[in-house]
Amino acid sequence: MNFISAIESSALAAGSVESFLTALHAEFCLDHDGELATYIPELAKANPNHFGIVIATTDGRIHAVGDCDALFTIQSVSKAFMYGDVLKRLGREKVLSKVGVEPTGDAFNSIVLDEVANRPFNPMVNAGAIVVSNLIEGGDRAEREKEMLATLGAFAGREMVFDWDVFRSELTTGHRNRAIAYLMLNAGMLDLSPDDALDIYYKQCSALVTCRDLAIMGATLANDGVNPLTRERVLPSECVQDVLSVMYGCGMYDYAGQWSFDVGLPAKSGVAGGLVAVAPGQFAIGFYSPRLDRFGNTVRGVKACKKISGMLSLHSFFSGGKAGSIIRRELSGRNVRSSRVRPREVRALLDADPAPVRIAELQGSLHFANVERVASYLDALAGETSRAILDLRHVYSCDAASAAFLGGLQRIWTSSGRILVWSCVPATGALEVLNTALAEAKALVFPDIDHALEYFEDLALPQSKDRSKSAIESMKEIDLCRGLDEQEWTNFVACLAPSVVEFEPGSVIARTGDAADCLFVILAGSVLVSSPPASDQPSFRLASLDSGLTFGEMGLFEGARRSADVIAEQRTICVVIAKDAVTRLEALHPVIAAKIYANLIREQAARLQRANVTIHSLR
Amino acid sequence: MNFISAIESSALAAGSVESFLTALHAEFCLDHDGELATYIPELAKANPNHFGIVIATTDGRIHAVGDCDALFTIQSVSKAFMYGDVLKRLGREKVLSKVGVEPTGDAFNSIVLDEVANRPFNPMVNAGAIVVSNLIEGGDRAEREKEMLATLGAFAGREMVFDWDVFRSELTTGHRNRAIAYLMLNAGMLDLSPDDALDIYYKQCSALVTCRDLAIMGATLANDGVNPLTRERVLPSECVQDVLSVMYGCGMYDYAGQWSFDVGLPAKSGVAGGLVAVAPGQFAIGFYSPRLDRFGNTVRGVKACKKISGMLSLHSFFSGGKAGSIIRRELSGRNVRSSRVRPREVRALLDADPAPVRIAELQGSLHFANVERVASYLDALAGETSRAILDLRHVYSCDAASAAFLGGLQRIWTSSGRILVWSCVPATGALEVLNTALAEAKALVFPDIDHALEYFEDLALPQSKDRSKSAIESMKEIDLCRGLDEQEWTNFVACLAPSVVEFEPGSVIARTGDAADCLFVILAGSVLVSSPPASDQPSFRLASLDSGLTFGEMGLFEGARRSADVIAEQRTICVVIAKDAVTRLEALHPVIAAKIYANLIREQAARLQRANVTIHSLR
Repeated sequence: MNFISAIESSALAAGSVESFLTALHAEFCLDHDGELATYIPELAKANPNHFGIVIATTDGRIHAVGDCDALFTIQSVSKAFMYGDVLKRLGREKVLSKVGVEPTGDAFNSIVLDEVANRPFNPMVNAGAIVVSNLIEGGDRAEREKEMLATLGAFAGREMVFDWDVFRSELTTGHRNRAIAYLMLNAGMLDLSPDDALDIYYKQCSALVTCRDLAIMGATLANDGVNPLTRERVLPSECVQDVLSVMYGCGMYDYAGQWSFDVGLPAKSGVAGGLVAVAPGQFAIGFYSPRLDRFGNTVRGVKACKKISGMLSLHSFFSGGKAGSIIRRELSGRNVRSSRVRPREVRALLDADPAPVRIAELQGSLHFANVERVASYLDALAGETSRAILDLRHVYSCDAASAAFLGGLQRIWTSSGRILVWSCVPATGALEVLNTALAEAKALVFPDIDHALEYFEDLALPQSKDRSKSAIESMKEIDLCRGLDEQEWTNFVACLAPSVVEFEPGSVIARTGDAADCLFVILAGSVLVSSPPASDQPSFRLASLDSGLTFGEMGLFEGARRSADVIAEQRTICVVIAKDAVTRLEALHPVIAAKIYANLIREQAARLQRANVTIHSLR
Repeated sequence: MNFISAIESSALAAGSVESFLTALHAEFCLDHDGELATYIPELAKANPNHFGIVIATTDGRIHAVGDCDALFTIQSVSKAFMYGDVLKRLGREKVLSKVGVEPTGDAFNSIVLDEVANRPFNPMVNAGAIVVSNLIEGGDRAEREKEMLATLGAFAGREMVFDWDVFRSELTTGHRNRAIAYLMLNAGMLDLSPDDALDIYYKQCSALVTCRDLAIMGATLANDGVNPLTRERVLPSECVQDVLSVMYGCGMYDYAGQWSFDVGLPAKSGVAGGLVAVAPGQFAIGFYSPRLDRFGNTVRGVKACKKISGMLSLHSFFSGGKAGSIIRRELSGRNVRSSRVRPREVRALLDADPAPVRIAELQGSLHFANVERVASYLDALAGETSRAILDLRHVYSCDAASAAFLGGLQRIWTSSGRILVWSCVPATGALEVLNTALAEAKALVFPDIDHALEYFEDLALPQSKDRSKSAIESMKEIDLCRGLDEQEWTNFVACLAPSVVEFEPGSVIARTGDAADCLFVILAGSVLVSSPPASDQPSFRLASLDSGLTFGEMGLFEGARRSADVIAEQRTICVVIAKDAVTRLEALHPVIAAKIYANLIREQAARLQRANVTIHSLR
């Protein structure tokens, strides 16, 4: 069923949507089946050869071929959009009391009523649509006309006008619709007079559109009710669901069942030859070709849409390829560390952790099936670790149920003494409900994985021993000076004449591009090493360094410049060792210089190795 | 419409699916509306208070509450599954010629035929189901019975038996069904005698199931036709689509339209009180409660399912939260480099590249709307770079149309002189069609982003100058020896007495855990530094190093061990500098030692800085 012939495959294999549509257009242009609608005399004047196909995506791209700017009257395609309008204004309950949602095996102009509920079967048959027209807001004809044009125009993203000839033609020849209107009046379904109800109904049908308009109107439904061109929200989400439901079941008259079986897309056709099909979340397709089949649907439009749906696997119940994983990537604290560089003895502690934190990066939309999987994943961790990070950077939506459920997971972890934290929960409206649930569950939320990792690393650490006591003397304990005997230490200090500098939190210790002529040793506090902001990205953390560590090694070399900004994270005390002093040390005490250098090399080699492991894990 | 009351929210907020279901079960247990079916006398013997709810996920987890192990007869729920069975065996066309797919406004036991097509409206009404039963494979009653039990059993993942009492009860009291069978015979729809057709039909209805079974049967449909417990493929994908389509439109009798409007899930109910609803790609829910509404559907099941669908946003046309991005992450060659470490001058070349390669990591399922977005993304790159990598590691499926389209994109890039390569295209069956299309388009496919990046870096490089000429002498040019004057160089060589060693491709230069007592300098060739394989992950590349670079710095320090495996990637010539020799150098020529060390520090500081940028970009 998803078979693609050689020709079609080559159309797709051109790698352009336009060539694909052009090939389809050429194929169905040869089809001259069907007849123009004649029951409205004006419609018989259409050019029977017109044929246009337009795809409009939810992010506003348009792919158009054929007669996609030819104007025609919207006819019954309007029913779907006006149904949405009254749902938005009056609410589902009120509208359901007037018009049902049951498919009917009968034709579009059927007069049959649902006798149990005493209402038209659905809003896509004329009887239902006339009742819906009767619900359009406005005191008089002019007001209702204005509201109706505004609604259709908001969906299409442009101003709409009528074809008055078609309007008058329908008004003077639509006897059957007049009969229907009187029956509706008789059934108590009309507040307006039949004349007023038909006036607005015929006007709605006479709005002039192109198949480009239809594609954009459909794309507005595909895009959750937001017009992809104007970015205006035309319909609330819940009304979009209702409109698509009714289009799916009832949009193609008595061909609806076969349509939803074969094509499987919410769609609506009109007797002027227009057709719109919606692929929710993806795009919509507008068709125009005025020759109709016996059901009143455009022949070429139906055939082309069926083909497109099959080729592109658009069917709503297309099976296969759906089982994407909510867990995008799993990381372990064994391999991935925060960018806070820890002193050697602390790194050894973290390396030896038998149950390092586990990180799961979630992706996509959080709905029930997904959070159920997350719960099962967290359950399965129980034997391995009691610490976990859920990263939500790649999550773009969450429904209320999933938010509540995730809040519950947090509480389960907390109450059982395990530690679950969250990183990078987007603050967008679509995740507001989740942010609230996490706040209520007293969840710890970090701006990114890096900081969440740092939190767990801190938990594993002994209280850090700040070396603030006697400044220079305390430097003797740190890695840089490892292996120096007492005499060497004395010579080292004497030769370097290191100065001790104190930095307030937030003060800039080094700035990118500055001449670099010294090395820093952190005695107390910690510093943030961050990239300079660039035109295409803001500043970001390269590393944080704790007391006991050195930075600015490049400052020991001729002509170097700082390659990053360094800022004190807290009150920070550094020993500053000037390049000149090191040059002097090399000359006077080359053995000491070699020892110091060797210590630096050892530290850097270890950091580089850790960085390579991290890079591998993150790739 | 997605409103969640305080109580329900707290059920969800318990963070466990069981507590959620338990709360729902408790709520609807209080509902005693509806009546037991009486038209089959045996059914009236059911316990009216029984109530079970079971969720079965596509990955085989089961969440069950209430009377989920109570046995009852499957009745009409079987119609959906037997319809799938005959579709699988006979194909869509043949089955459609016998039974339509149009919803009917009529009751389940309606006798109305689609007079245009001369066939029952759909396989979910009794007339259609009897015709379907007639199509079950087998020569005699026993064979058909076996085939039917095997089908239902494969969906449920266990052996099925009949309730013979119910069977006999139906057989002796089902006069209306007998009338239908004769009408089908009259219409030429039956090959079997009405007695034989009814025999298999009643047996099919009499199979004993639990609501746990129904959930698993539904989960098999949700899981693209593969039973999530047995992993057996019970139905091909295309039949799953057809079965779900018909369930969606016709599964709930004359309540179908309202059901698909309100609940929006493919579902099927039976008069014994069973109901299964399918959330495709996610899970299925089985219900059992024998009190029925006037349509013949289980009262509690329908109400609970409606509630679950609303709370969990399961409606097929639920709008909102669908617009996930196909592009999971975008990287630039400016920040991310391959793990091949380049000599300093080459790094400078890469840093200065004004139009570095762009990497787009795709995620999820490749369908038309997604590849259209990828095409538009690649188009938009045109002004910035003519080199791109598409990474497919997180892509799990691709339909034929999208594969053809992506092949086309490759050809467009190639023919316009731009370079598009692919990384990590999974070799799974679901992507076979894409692998074929890429091969046909002569696409370059790399095992991972790392190697793809390396390819682009190589393109930007001058031909590497191998230093194979005179070994030791050529070492003078490399970074390690920078700044040594002639005298120092002579002393350096004399003191270190470095040896030159040649390695064949693939030979191991150092192995993790070995005592490390020397430093290596690559004169010609290149080496791969890879992590040792561990229990939880295979060996992976930490870095590749080209000629001119050093490795094994830790070997200069007392008691060190190799922390990675190093393997020659090609014929590789290294200078080996022993630790003892370096100790001697420190003692005899500390100035030279300090210079060499300083060069190492500078190189490592630069590598570390680059690694930190890469880590940031990858996070």
